[in-house]
Amino acid sequence: MVSWKNLDTLKSYEKLVALKDHVDIKEAMAGDSGVERVKKYNVPMAEGLVYNYAAKQVDDEVLAVLAELAEEAQLVEKFQEVYNGAVVNTGEKRMVLHHLARGQLGNAVKDGDVDKRDFYAGVQKRANEFAAKVHAGEIVNEKGESFTTIVQIGIGGSDLGPRALYLALQDWAKKNGKFKMEAKFISNVDPDDASAVLNSCDLSRSLFVVVSKSGTTLETLTNETFVKNALVDAGLDPKKHMLAVTSETSPMAQGTDYLDAFFMDDYIGGRFSSSSAVGGVVLALAFGGEIFDEIMAGAHEEDKLAMNKNIFENPAMLDALIGVYERNVQGYSNTAVLPYSQALIRFPAHLQQLDMESNGKSVNRFGERVNYVTGPIIFGEPGTNGQHSFYQLLHQGKTIVPLQFIGYRESQIENDYVIKGSTSQAKLCANVVAQIMAFACGRDNENPNKSFDGGRPSSFIHGDKVTPRSLGALLSHFENKVMFQGFTWNINSFDQEGVQLGKILATAVLAGETDGALKALSEIMGI
Amino acid sequence: MVSWKNLDTLKSYEKLVALKDHVDIKEAMAGDSGVERVKKYNVPMAEGLVYNYAAKQVDDEVLAVLAELAEEAQLVEKFQEVYNGAVVNTGEKRMVLHHLARGQLGNAVKDGDVDKRDFYAGVQKRANEFAAKVHAGEIVNEKGESFTTIVQIGIGGSDLGPRALYLALQDWAKKNGKFKMEAKFISNVDPDDASAVLNSCDLSRSLFVVVSKSGTTLETLTNETFVKNALVDAGLDPKKHMLAVTSETSPMAQGTDYLDAFFMDDYIGGRFSSSSAVGGVVLALAFGGEIFDEIMAGAHEEDKLAMNKNIFENPAMLDALIGVYERNVQGYSNTAVLPYSQALIRFPAHLQQLDMESNGKSVNRFGERVNYVTGPIIFGEPGTNGQHSFYQLLHQGKTIVPLQFIGYRESQIENDYVIKGSTSQAKLCANVVAQIMAFACGRDNENPNKSFDGGRPSSFIHGDKVTPRSLGALLSHFENKVMFQGFTWNINSFDQEGVQLGKILATAVLAGETDGALKALSEIMGI
Repeated sequence: MVSWKNLDTLKSYEKLVALKDHVDIKEAMAGDSGVERVKKYNVPMAEGLVYNYAAKQVDDEVLAVLAELAEEAQLVEKFQEVYNGAVVNTGEKRMVLHHLARGQLGNAVKDGDVDKRDFYAGVQKRANEFAAKVHAGEIVNEKGESFTTIVQIGIGGSDLGPRALYLALQDWAKKNGKFKMEAKFISNVDPDDASAVLNSCDLSRSLFVVVSKSGTTLETLTNETFVKNALVDAGLDPKKHMLAVTSETSPMAQGTDYLDAFFMDDYIGGRFSSSSAVGGVVLALAFGGEIFDEIMAGAHEEDKLAMNKNIFENPAMLDALIGVYERNVQGYSNTAVLPYSQALIRFPAHLQQLDMESNGKSVNRFGERVNYVTGPIIFGEPGTNGQHSFYQLLHQGKTIVPLQFIGYRESQIENDYVIKGSTSQAKLCANVVAQIMAFACGRDNENPNKSFDGGRPSSFIHGDKVTPRSLGALLSHFENKVMFQGFTWNINSFDQEGVQLGKILATAVLAGETDGALKALSEIMGI
Repeated sequence: MVSWKNLDTLKSYEKLVALKDHVDIKEAMAGDSGVERVKKYNVPMAEGLVYNYAAKQVDDEVLAVLAELAEEAQLVEKFQEVYNGAVVNTGEKRMVLHHLARGQLGNAVKDGDVDKRDFYAGVQKRANEFAAKVHAGEIVNEKGESFTTIVQIGIGGSDLGPRALYLALQDWAKKNGKFKMEAKFISNVDPDDASAVLNSCDLSRSLFVVVSKSGTTLETLTNETFVKNALVDAGLDPKKHMLAVTSETSPMAQGTDYLDAFFMDDYIGGRFSSSSAVGGVVLALAFGGEIFDEIMAGAHEEDKLAMNKNIFENPAMLDALIGVYERNVQGYSNTAVLPYSQALIRFPAHLQQLDMESNGKSVNRFGERVNYVTGPIIFGEPGTNGQHSFYQLLHQGKTIVPLQFIGYRESQIENDYVIKGSTSQAKLCANVVAQIMAFACGRDNENPNKSFDGGRPSSFIHGDKVTPRSLGALLSHFENKVMFQGFTWNINSFDQEGVQLGKILATAVLAGETDGALKALSEIMGI
């Protein structure tokens, strides 16, 4: 049995705290030492990706303590509990099975008589078959015309992950003959979101996927009705245009309002649900089921690495532990995610949810307050754009922000020109490595305004290209990093009670059941 | 003459520091006290906007000290210096004239013989006339066809501000018969950015605006050549399709490669340049010159409020001072910008640059290290989307993040349905006020995992609708807030030396002139 203990009760953590400011990165990354670190401080990931941590504030001594911490906190044993079906989501008393949705890592997991691996694979098989029929013109609209657009209606995890993955692969798919249908997304309850998307679509040739696990999400149900009204106004039959992704026990599953329904369950939280039908239906329709299967295969390969007890063979665990050192020992409160890839334009927004919703907690898994900080604040934009925006503060501001660079050697569209002696792709790659060194080592200048202190830590995930498989591996890496950090902090990374109070108060406002300042604010807004 | 002093040398700052944790927001926002605060703690902005700070951690005592600080730091006198043309950008020895680009606030500002107000107005008049000719079909492509698409090629301030404004008004313009041409943007040096945009355009009917003040920005010059190559490959004449926005002294201004050129100057920094031809050309082409003029008129009205010495009549200055209290006294290192408006989807990304590039500094305007923290880290996404993403950490995490809510009573497209008793717009408004109260007051629960501490401060800018004028006012508010904070911290908010080192190192990588870790990293990336 594993033992769930607070971080500050662990002996290895005491050792780690004693190693505050142990490594001067500016010094470590200079000269031969820097070369050695770049060559040595690598962990292979799946699908040709590599996690390089040369420019992190660690050395062999810190790493040795991190290895002790991994062992003492039983991080891999806790992951075993997860994939073997233990009820690790203690708050909601649920198993956590997003790994199982993409492949079997351990024992068979049963829910009653149902083998959960069979369940997830079966749903996706049906989604892929449905998509194939749409692509083949076997499932068509009222007039017998093929569908050309798929619109996902969902919010939070039903939006951010699937949207990030779609955007990451749309150009790759076009280049490689895998692009089947354009996907669009409606998420916000702001009526202008739905209106603008609907105005941009040929409604008669659009399919809508309504995604809500509980079948009770206010924004999603509102937008579902909003779209139904628009379809009816256009003389179309909503039942011929709408699909449902929901749990078998939700109100949405009871209706007969949908062309088809694909089920998920309570064991996959929203921010982990790209691997379920939440991502599977829209992505199979956009790119074909075999592309979604490729994403899942890449994620599954990366998941296997997370089973390794050796921190040097488990990139997600090492990344997680270095992050804990930065957050709890070095005292950094943010992490910036900086993909040097236009394809990953919304990947930081997905990671923002994944990390902040999972680990933005103040109580441990037993409901007791913890006396240490937990999840960091995540933000990011693609490089090189960020260089011309917020990097000023990262380089010369008063607050140190650990950085997560991501870069690829090849573009997706493979259309490039040599301009002033180098391709755009080479310029992109030159920038990411230049930034790593600029942040680490800085540069003195007699004008203090032009001086760079350096000493700003970063890690670097690099690979050949954003493909379905490497994208799946990247997705898994961060999911598992967040999970291992949650284990280390002894918190439940799988619930999100912090979203509830706002819902309750908004419902009270709409019902006119408020008083005090909330009533005064409501009156200002005319409600 | 004004006197430039470090924040920690001011007597009023000493008083402010003594007021740490002076206000318990949870208590202050409860019951009658909360109602009173909502009604009293308002400052009118221009164009019907209101800055409400009821849920900030201030009371009359804190506000009195902030008023002293405003006076002692001579914030308004320093703004007078700015708009009267003093060389306040000390690092680069330049005037700072983005306010003048939208209207005259003080004395005539001369640069040699040139009246700068006349210069900016003249350039925009020419841009508006050019746009009108394009819209009227007087300026056409090689085949005599009208142009349908405008593509801005620029990065940083030449991208983020104009893009945020375009996205904020495109649906309003479509609804109100003001939509002239679709605008697209190429910014990243990643070749997939340019390729994807070019693949989505009819090149023969597209105009490209190349925007670089210096005429030397690597990404922009590369993308300019990238686009030129694509035009030539398509049998088109680049000179018939490309416009330049640059300074009169730049290499771009010397060429004869453009259909037309519109000038800006060194007195408007990139992140403030939406008010110059950088924003003016693309927005006049997209919506017509009169719409751009409306944006500027709204900004100018808001600028006038920034001239008031009374903090209760100067919303930008009050917002700035409360921010300084939060950053330097309360110790909060982030600010989240949360617009409850889909139109403002990229406004947080613009503010991220505006704030972090302006105030992410460690030396004062004389180049001396400061001993206090400066600009915060800015991030944000539209509500209600954020509620289903990172709000978990904001509500229940270990780190308090001050929040900037923005909300409007009306949608732009005005297409809405009553669903379960309320419109989507009402639901949106109910959510923003509910969140303000949830963050301020929290709610106890016997289950600590479902408990909300509250005590999380926010401010609220509200208005009727995102229109050109109210958008201009919003833009100005944040620009002036950032400027007043820079004055308070005694830093130069108008340069960005922190972007230089990365450029130098990237150039060295491309030239093969590196050694050590940078060479090792370059080899990994195949360059």
